[in-house]
Amino acid sequence: MIPSFTSPSRNRRVLLKRRPIGIPLATDFEIVREPIPKIGEGELLVRNLYLSADPVQRGWAADSAIVPIGAPMRALSVGVVQDSRVAAIRPGELVYGFLGWQDYAVVTPLELLSHVPHPRATASSYAGVLGMPGVTAWLALADLAPPGPDDTILVSTAAGAVGSVVGQIARARGARAIGLTGSAAKVTRCIDRYGYSAAFDYKSIDLTTTLVSVAPAGFSIYFDNTGGWIADYAIRAMARNGRIIQCGTAATANWSPPPTGLRPEREVLTRVLTWSGFYIFDHVARFHAAIAALSDLIDAGLLTYDEDVEPGFDGITSALEALFAGTNSGKKLIFIGDV
Amino acid sequence: MIPSFTSPSRNRRVLLKRRPIGIPLATDFEIVREPIPKIGEGELLVRNLYLSADPVQRGWAADSAIVPIGAPMRALSVGVVQDSRVAAIRPGELVYGFLGWQDYAVVTPLELLSHVPHPRATASSYAGVLGMPGVTAWLALADLAPPGPDDTILVSTAAGAVGSVVGQIARARGARAIGLTGSAAKVTRCIDRYGYSAAFDYKSIDLTTTLVSVAPAGFSIYFDNTGGWIADYAIRAMARNGRIIQCGTAATANWSPPPTGLRPEREVLTRVLTWSGFYIFDHVARFHAAIAALSDLIDAGLLTYDEDVEPGFDGITSALEALFAGTNSGKKLIFIGDV
Repeated sequence: MIPSFTSPSRNRRVLLKRRPIGIPLATDFEIVREPIPKIGEGELLVRNLYLSADPVQRGWAADSAIVPIGAPMRALSVGVVQDSRVAAIRPGELVYGFLGWQDYAVVTPLELLSHVPHPRATASSYAGVLGMPGVTAWLALADLAPPGPDDTILVSTAAGAVGSVVGQIARARGARAIGLTGSAAKVTRCIDRYGYSAAFDYKSIDLTTTLVSVAPAGFSIYFDNTGGWIADYAIRAMARNGRIIQCGTAATANWSPPPTGLRPEREVLTRVLTWSGFYIFDHVARFHAAIAALSDLIDAGLLTYDEDVEPGFDGITSALEALFAGTNSGKKLIFIGDV
Repeated sequence: MIPSFTSPSRNRRVLLKRRPIGIPLATDFEIVREPIPKIGEGELLVRNLYLSADPVQRGWAADSAIVPIGAPMRALSVGVVQDSRVAAIRPGELVYGFLGWQDYAVVTPLELLSHVPHPRATASSYAGVLGMPGVTAWLALADLAPPGPDDTILVSTAAGAVGSVVGQIARARGARAIGLTGSAAKVTRCIDRYGYSAAFDYKSIDLTTTLVSVAPAGFSIYFDNTGGWIADYAIRAMARNGRIIQCGTAATANWSPPPTGLRPEREVLTRVLTWSGFYIFDHVARFHAAIAALSDLIDAGLLTYDEDVEPGFDGITSALEALFAGTNSGKKLIFIGDV
């Protein structure tokens, strides 16, 4: 049954019911119904349109300092301003940020990542290609390893919300992008849609021989969203003076007890690598500039994107499960309301 | 018996007799006697004064592409030019570089790291504080993590030829330096002579609690000469946006089969680290500038150094063993001749 998308009269909210062991499951959450909240001076009332499921939430759900048991799950959403006591933001305008998995959010502008009075793309795109994932791809590359025609860049989770943008930025700048992803269908999407010269299902290849044969001179950039054993092999396929961007660690579901792997320090030394962490929430002030640049790429026909949009509020509790299982076919969003 | 230091009439040379398993032992080498070589156009005849034992030689000895069995061991030495068919270099001048573990070397200027017509310090210092180790400390810090008054820097092998210079450069620039080393005597040297605010014998402490208590806000720089489990703990004691310089991997004697350790990628990501390899031989063109800067520090009384000089050619074959056992009390050199 397709739910009604008229403004809900109660505020459905997703609370963290218990601490997840590894990947957050539907059974770790519960949905409660509360009255629609009211705002005070300096606050906004936002009605969410799209709830977003993002890999970073696994870390948030694991951390009692970020999400206490019984508290609303920390989450990004796209919504429309219903009521405003903030001078620069008006009702009817689109916003994106820490709006939670709920129908209504009361936030201050500090909890927003973007405010979009004049959208250049669909509302949903501000949670994906023009949201945290796309902006992460843009800023991490710009800051840590701007690709150029001499670069060969390896990307893990190449068909994901970040990886799909990385491949296309690399292609647009003349670099050669090689993708690692988790299914034959995603390999096809990487090559047909996301700018990759070649892509591989890491589950069905010998990674060492594949990486050497596709890039005999080594990779000058590795954009790593997984860590784990894929990264162990990738680091051993790097060119001298290569740069590694650590953007995610999706391959490891649980860091306690600390997992072990091949020691990387000799590779860092002998390949003279630079391995840098990128944390998007250090760069909130740069979101609007990155969104403008990405919008230009979309307008120029150089950046496409896919969204896996599922209607119905209740689906959000199993969205992270689906995301880490890799069964989504684009940016994972739950649609809960029209503008 | 103290050997004679008159010019030898035969050329003693150290050959690699067999591939070392891990640390090169005296039994991996043999000494042969050959005639004194002659030079051609563009070449120098150098009589070595100090043979140097450096950790990097473990990697050279392990690599059949660098030192084939039966070939002269790759090594750095300080020598005096005996004969020259190079316009800019005259007999009697001091040189330092790939002069080998032998009495006489025939080299071109490309095999030199420094040419010192007007020494500002002792001949031996051009293999240590003004040689590869000191220049490594200077350039790695300058390029990858220039320390300042806000920095707390952790250094492994803090009393070593590189670490002892790192501590003093950090101190001279107002940073707080914390050293890890392998004996109580070296802890004392670190604090009394090498600029360290505190130093610890890593073998006799709980590393986790010690690092947290000495730097509760974390280390902004880690100058790593060891890798291995010390680095596993150090990376978990880094401050946000910290920088790691990977300069050596002394803790691991053998990389085949590849050793494992705690996975670092989550630390790189969540602490937003930058972890860079430094390879000194990429920077040969900058040796003279670095030597001048280090000489200025010595002249200003800001940089001291210790040398562990042993007379007698034959001692060189066991010098790496001693170095990796940590029994030396300063830059390890074998003295084989006067100027």
